[in-house]
Amino acid sequence: MHSFETLAAQFAEKFNTQHFPDTLPSLYQPAEYFLSIGGKRVRPVLCLMGNELFDTIKPDAWHVAHAVELFHNFTLIHDDIMDKAPLRRGVQTVHVKYSEPTALLAGDVMIVAAYEYLSRINPMMLPKVMSLFNKTAREVCEGQQLDMDFEERTTVTFDEYMHMVTLKTSVLLAASLQLGAILGGSGGDNQNHLYAFGKNLGIAFQLQDDYLDAFGDPAKFGKQPGGDIMANKKTFLTIQVLEKASEVQKKELLRLMKDNPPDKVPAVMQIFTECKVDTWARNLKDKYLNMALQHLEDTAVISSRKKPLQELALFLVQREY
Amino acid sequence: MHSFETLAAQFAEKFNTQHFPDTLPSLYQPAEYFLSIGGKRVRPVLCLMGNELFDTIKPDAWHVAHAVELFHNFTLIHDDIMDKAPLRRGVQTVHVKYSEPTALLAGDVMIVAAYEYLSRINPMMLPKVMSLFNKTAREVCEGQQLDMDFEERTTVTFDEYMHMVTLKTSVLLAASLQLGAILGGSGGDNQNHLYAFGKNLGIAFQLQDDYLDAFGDPAKFGKQPGGDIMANKKTFLTIQVLEKASEVQKKELLRLMKDNPPDKVPAVMQIFTECKVDTWARNLKDKYLNMALQHLEDTAVISSRKKPLQELALFLVQREY
Repeated sequence: MHSFETLAAQFAEKFNTQHFPDTLPSLYQPAEYFLSIGGKRVRPVLCLMGNELFDTIKPDAWHVAHAVELFHNFTLIHDDIMDKAPLRRGVQTVHVKYSEPTALLAGDVMIVAAYEYLSRINPMMLPKVMSLFNKTAREVCEGQQLDMDFEERTTVTFDEYMHMVTLKTSVLLAASLQLGAILGGSGGDNQNHLYAFGKNLGIAFQLQDDYLDAFGDPAKFGKQPGGDIMANKKTFLTIQVLEKASEVQKKELLRLMKDNPPDKVPAVMQIFTECKVDTWARNLKDKYLNMALQHLEDTAVISSRKKPLQELALFLVQREY
Repeated sequence: MHSFETLAAQFAEKFNTQHFPDTLPSLYQPAEYFLSIGGKRVRPVLCLMGNELFDTIKPDAWHVAHAVELFHNFTLIHDDIMDKAPLRRGVQTVHVKYSEPTALLAGDVMIVAAYEYLSRINPMMLPKVMSLFNKTAREVCEGQQLDMDFEERTTVTFDEYMHMVTLKTSVLLAASLQLGAILGGSGGDNQNHLYAFGKNLGIAFQLQDDYLDAFGDPAKFGKQPGGDIMANKKTFLTIQVLEKASEVQKKELLRLMKDNPPDKVPAVMQIFTECKVDTWARNLKDKYLNMALQHLEDTAVISSRKKPLQELALFLVQREY
């Protein structure tokens, strides 16, 4: 069994290669640029770990790990266009550095490249792998559409936001694990437990994301917290605070969101604290982490094989950056 | 053997269905809207014909025909965003009727839907089919990027333009035929001839497209000719006229392109005629049509089976709309 660090390093080494030909730099340089920015490579490692839970890692799992990471990067490039995001991981997004049409097309060739990796695996595994990959790809697109729809709305319920996060973030983590499990020869029950582990972990991961953006330690977080508050972004915290706030607090929150005064972030943060949104978020995160770990527990393989996944889960939801 | 009309009608009937679920209208209605606009459905029919040249049409060929048409529509939705096109087939484009982010995402779910159809075919055929489909998908993206690159440039050579057209238009026609041939059980030589037939036919098709936009009969063409001239679009005709024009004519052309005077279209058309660009285009189209037909001739199946493809080829390059 390999740790997250080992697999992430091995994957990064393999992935750190030229993915596209030299023939058309106006298209392929932007694509390579984005891939070179890096990232935690969590999804491909989940795929490899899903395989290694049941068997030694197969070459096919490496192909699918590449496909998953390329697909994830495809969604990031297109999301950045839609969200008009200037920065990603501290550097310029593709559509800003190059142009929107080129970013759109760089995303398109990246999803095709993902399917190129899929097409290399054992043909007998391909229908099952493609079926889960396609279903997940479609759900991730649905999640992004819901996210955009919610930004246009004044109020979004907790359940609606949870559904969006599940589609936009969780299902790809869950599917990465299940894809690995399929290639590792896992049976259906274990596949389902692993999928549920990934899905609940994804929720806990997003809760931590939303929490850090408000309550993160700037020294560790790497940027000034409050970005979501400044942008009036809907997060677990903003949705919860509107459910918990008194009429006075709610009025004040809506005023702060509308007027964007200079003290907006500390003022909103104070209401967050008054409404105990921080404790609520930590508790909810723990609830989802525990549900995830229970599904891992219920997966029928000897427990020593599960250790890397347990460690990765704790790292993802306890990280401070 | 079925005619183009018969297969197009059969395909249209199958394709005229709901492709996406009701769950998320903000994403799936725009996608369905675009598919309902229609189109000639040439590519899926080429896939079916490529199969029927060698054997009765297999269910897998219908799946791949759907995949090819969905992929084509994915490229159209995204191209329209990049080209900022207000209309497609006389009605509003997706990004105008809805929004750019939604159009982007509607295209994304459409390419995923294309791969969903591919994943349904006989697993043993899947690697070969995916490999050709992916290669072609990437080439079509390259063609679109080149097209955009060329619009930024003052001059583009004939060879460069030909390369772009081959990627943007021809390879998908060629691959549709070859995909059908693969599913019909064709050997490699015949597959190559059919691919070459489709590739040359695609050039002739584009030549007819560019020709009609300048010299089409408005009554049959359905719109006023001269759209490409008005937009200073690079076409086979504009590239050829700049190669053939005298210094005086060239100067006049550049002035017309720069100043956009009210008489721009007739003035450019007059230089087209003086330089005999119309005759040149018709001759070149015939040359590519004949090369295409020769490859069909060289395909080793009895000639009676080739009739529908011959008729389709003539229809595509002689159409007046």
